[in-house]
Amino acid sequence: MAKVVGFVGLGAMGSEMVRRLLAAGHKVVGYNRTRSKARPLLDAGMEWRDPPRALAQAADIVFTMVADTEALRAVTDGPDGILAGLGRGKIYVDTSTVSPAASRTLAARVAERGARMLDAPVSGSTVTVREGRLSFMVGGDKADCDAVTPILLDIGARVTYVGGHGQGALMKIAANLNLGAQMLAFSEAMLLAEKGGITPELAAEVLLNSAIASPMLRYRGPFVLREPEEVLFTVNMMQKDLLLALEMGRQLDVPLPTTAVANEFLTAARAIGLAGKDFAAMYEALARLSGVLR
Amino acid sequence: MAKVVGFVGLGAMGSEMVRRLLAAGHKVVGYNRTRSKARPLLDAGMEWRDPPRALAQAADIVFTMVADTEALRAVTDGPDGILAGLGRGKIYVDTSTVSPAASRTLAARVAERGARMLDAPVSGSTVTVREGRLSFMVGGDKADCDAVTPILLDIGARVTYVGGHGQGALMKIAANLNLGAQMLAFSEAMLLAEKGGITPELAAEVLLNSAIASPMLRYRGPFVLREPEEVLFTVNMMQKDLLLALEMGRQLDVPLPTTAVANEFLTAARAIGLAGKDFAAMYEALARLSGVLR
Amino acid sequence: MAKVVGFVGLGAMGSEMVRRLLAAGHKVVGYNRTRSKARPLLDAGMEWRDPPRALAQAADIVFTMVADTEALRAVTDGPDGILAGLGRGKIYVDTSTVSPAASRTLAARVAERGARMLDAPVSGSTVTVREGRLSFMVGGDKADCDAVTPILLDIGARVTYVGGHGQGALMKIAANLNLGAQMLAFSEAMLLAEKGGITPELAAEVLLNSAIASPMLRYRGPFVLREPEEVLFTVNMMQKDLLLALEMGRQLDVPLPTTAVANEFLTAARAIGLAGKDFAAMYEALARLSGVLR
Amino acid sequence: MAKVVGFVGLGAMGSEMVRRLLAAGHKVVGYNRTRSKARPLLDAGMEWRDPPRALAQAADIVFTMVADTEALRAVTDGPDGILAGLGRGKIYVDTSTVSPAASRTLAARVAERGARMLDAPVSGSTVTVREGRLSFMVGGDKADCDAVTPILLDIGARVTYVGGHGQGALMKIAANLNLGAQMLAFSEAMLLAEKGGITPELAAEVLLNSAIASPMLRYRGPFVLREPEEVLFTVNMMQKDLLLALEMGRQLDVPLPTTAVANEFLTAARAIGLAGKDFAAMYEALARLSGVLR
Repeated sequence: MAKVVGFVGLGAMGSEMVRRLLAAGHKVVGYNRTRSKARPLLDAGMEWRDPPRALAQAADIVFTMVADTEALRAVTDGPDGILAGLGRGKIYVDTSTVSPAASRTLAARVAERGARMLDAPVSGSTVTVREGRLSFMVGGDKADCDAVTPILLDIGARVTYVGGHGQGALMKIAANLNLGAQMLAFSEAMLLAEKGGITPELAAEVLLNSAIASPMLRYRGPFVLREPEEVLFTVNMMQKDLLLALEMGRQLDVPLPTTAVANEFLTAARAIGLAGKDFAAMYEALARLSGVLR
Repeated sequence: MAKVVGFVGLGAMGSEMVRRLLAAGHKVVGYNRTRSKARPLLDAGMEWRDPPRALAQAADIVFTMVADTEALRAVTDGPDGILAGLGRGKIYVDTSTVSPAASRTLAARVAERGARMLDAPVSGSTVTVREGRLSFMVGGDKADCDAVTPILLDIGARVTYVGGHGQGALMKIAANLNLGAQMLAFSEAMLLAEKGGITPELAAEVLLNSAIASPMLRYRGPFVLREPEEVLFTVNMMQKDLLLALEMGRQLDVPLPTTAVANEFLTAARAIGLAGKDFAAMYEALARLSGVLR
Repeated sequence: MAKVVGFVGLGAMGSEMVRRLLAAGHKVVGYNRTRSKARPLLDAGMEWRDPPRALAQAADIVFTMVADTEALRAVTDGPDGILAGLGRGKIYVDTSTVSPAASRTLAARVAERGARMLDAPVSGSTVTVREGRLSFMVGGDKADCDAVTPILLDIGARVTYVGGHGQGALMKIAANLNLGAQMLAFSEAMLLAEKGGITPELAAEVLLNSAIASPMLRYRGPFVLREPEEVLFTVNMMQKDLLLALEMGRQLDVPLPTTAVANEFLTAARAIGLAGKDFAAMYEALARLSGVLR
Repeated sequence: MAKVVGFVGLGAMGSEMVRRLLAAGHKVVGYNRTRSKARPLLDAGMEWRDPPRALAQAADIVFTMVADTEALRAVTDGPDGILAGLGRGKIYVDTSTVSPAASRTLAARVAERGARMLDAPVSGSTVTVREGRLSFMVGGDKADCDAVTPILLDIGARVTYVGGHGQGALMKIAANLNLGAQMLAFSEAMLLAEKGGITPELAAEVLLNSAIASPMLRYRGPFVLREPEEVLFTVNMMQKDLLLALEMGRQLDVPLPTTAVANEFLTAARAIGLAGKDFAAMYEALARLSGVLR
């Protein structure tokens, strides 16, 4: 495939995704707010394009992977934004987690430029990307999804087309609400074991090799015992996603009892000063409520 | 190993465990309240012993796998019970899910008979057993755990010694509280996707191939779409385990927010007539609260 | 007092408040989006002023009592809005329930006009106003609060100064989060009694004469048995307030467990088609979850 | 009325109830596990009877007011218990809060003795009794309820017959589940106000004079600011009642979401060492989760 792939947002996830693209032989042009983070990728063959408009002009397909709606607007809008560089024949794929409404609005603006957009958020951590097991849930036109699927499969292992614009975003939000509830339930189990006299290490070992051990828990559960070296998904970021879920629950009239409870424990984690920690810090909030002080 | 293995409780799980023992070459003597269920195992080489006392007399190591504390008492107590057949040198391994207190009481009574007991509940479904991936969490004396580990590894793949009598039971209860919360959160995600316009089949496919897909969800999640042919773990059985967890939470002073919420949705599932269905029926309770009637 | 009192927002609450002002001998000029609703008040001596700018010009003190932030902006902003008619020496008192941030922003804009603003939300229903028992929680400058207190006491019975701009709004939101939790707990009690064989009428009688009977429950509890003739505070309006509370909880890092749960049951009430009913309809959502169909 | 009234259980509530009986001119014979506590009542005219059997023999109508099912058995059972002293023509009225099942069992045993029993739990605190405003919710035979109503009205202000044996107990449990939820919601409001900059004293004043101020909150809310001199209803006692409610919820298939959540915060209060404090200590648990340390 002789197409040029553009990639905006070279954080932990974005960088790993670009590495996969480069490894598959794609020509990749990249942009990141902080250029220094792009150094390793430039060494690996990626080319720099600045501003995002120029990147969009240079690429046939443009990816974004950024933190939230605000960060997305910063790279898509304005005279230097991606939108200004899009035109007929180009496909823009947003892999960030934003609200379906924000994604639909953006898709309409992309269409006004004659280009097409897909919302294609992902499930998995940087480890998942590295192992080639990332999965995409895609919203937009089916034909566009089919068109980019080969490139998505160069990054990950699974592409599921779930419906029109914004449906990929909805699906991702639905998936992510489970993260909070699973982590809080895991914390309950850990504290029950600990206060019952089982060492945390042993309890984690048993739980993370049992029927409840989702990939997320196998990855993040150990952070309850010791903080990760690099924090990639904070309490604040997890709460952002749960708030999106709760907002969708209200819009679609779906009560979300475990999501609502988990969200309050993220607030508690923030209250005790852990907003910037990995969201496994929910454990610390419950531990405090259990009278456990490490 | 020339030891005779006794096995009381030949339901879905027990039967699969006995099959593994037979396949590993053990001589197995078995007993079940309803003898007809033992037919296939007898055909496969298991010998029948009746009553449990006789089985315990005939075996070097005795296993039980029954539904709850009451069922356990029915096979351990009285003149025909397992206890009456135990004596010096024998090891009794209970793999059921009962309260730590009940398990400790039983261990003391076993000790009075000169025998030793281990609580060794398991994590996994019949599928897990069949695939040889069952894991045991063991409470009791370390030496006894070491002694039976080879036999446990003929049944499953992992044996973790977690502490004294009752600690295996505690660990199992801690693990199982996650089941309820994970299933309720999964139901929230399914309903959010459905009411947002994504087909349930597609939503399940995405969710069960994402970072939240624990072995339990991969096994049980599809039951939300269609009921299993055979129901092995009902709403009532799941609630029994959550009640054990909530009871331990109170004893050990650990608040269990997601467990408490999930438990109320099991009550709801019972209220709408689904007590005997697989506990994936929590989904139906939440669906009703979402105005969704299938 | 020879001052002219302006009142914008002549719905159920506003109308009763104006009646109290008229009864106390004040000259009142009024405005409402729908003029026809003002008829009875005009008959009672209120004068009409249109648009809100003209009302603000004619009055020494201006009150607003509207549904939400959006409705507030509709009467305060633009060339015909209240702000345009405010000037030095005038005091503007908003008795609506809006977010503290919205209230603070408005107070700043009022100050730019040389006037002063107070946020003074109220606790109580139309019945409370009629009985002269309304209470105000006031935010803003203490001197301004003192200045308007005599007029507030002509409407109600109690004025509590709680702090700077927005603090009255915060206090109101804090008070109102209790409404949802109290109504849901009351519904739990009603259903427990009903399914246990006690008639709903008898159960309500006992509960509403017991230690749990807050003024709100004494007023609204009977709506569980039969809908009110006129719905003054809907499921949607209650949820608006709980969402303000949950938003403040996140801003101030206070977990709000019962508020979060009650909020999900308001979503459930909406899901089963009761968005426009009195928020006692939470009972119906829980009833459905209990398998009770009236 | 020339009848002799027996009263077993002279704690805070029982003592106040006996005072009311004495004030109404009744001859009262009393018993308490700790005799010294009866001193003031003996001074006021009550006569001592020991053991409970002798008291029951001496009285026409016997009351009990004790802490829980265990305490009830201690005074009703055995050769010295109340049951042994009951016989034809006597009425036994239990005003304690116990499970409906326990109450029904006791009623059957009372009937075997030829006597009749009523379960007649009360709503209110010692203050309520003193002010003559106590209300009774009565289960048993209607005729028996009618027979004792005059005496009950000498103690309190309201008697509601709610159904057969155990229904008074059920009604009380249903009422009491509200206490936990109301106190937790009140705590949420207090912390929201506090962290938002309003003094706790001011916040309590506003809340306890607003539409949410149930008699229970008006009595107990101030304990959030300062502990009561005498603790009459502890975290452990409140949890006992919530556990009875949750148990009834499971039996009657009624999900109890706010009760379940409040119960976990009582566990949290215990976890941080407040089991013996007034149950307003739920506030302290939530405060800790909010990062507030007084």
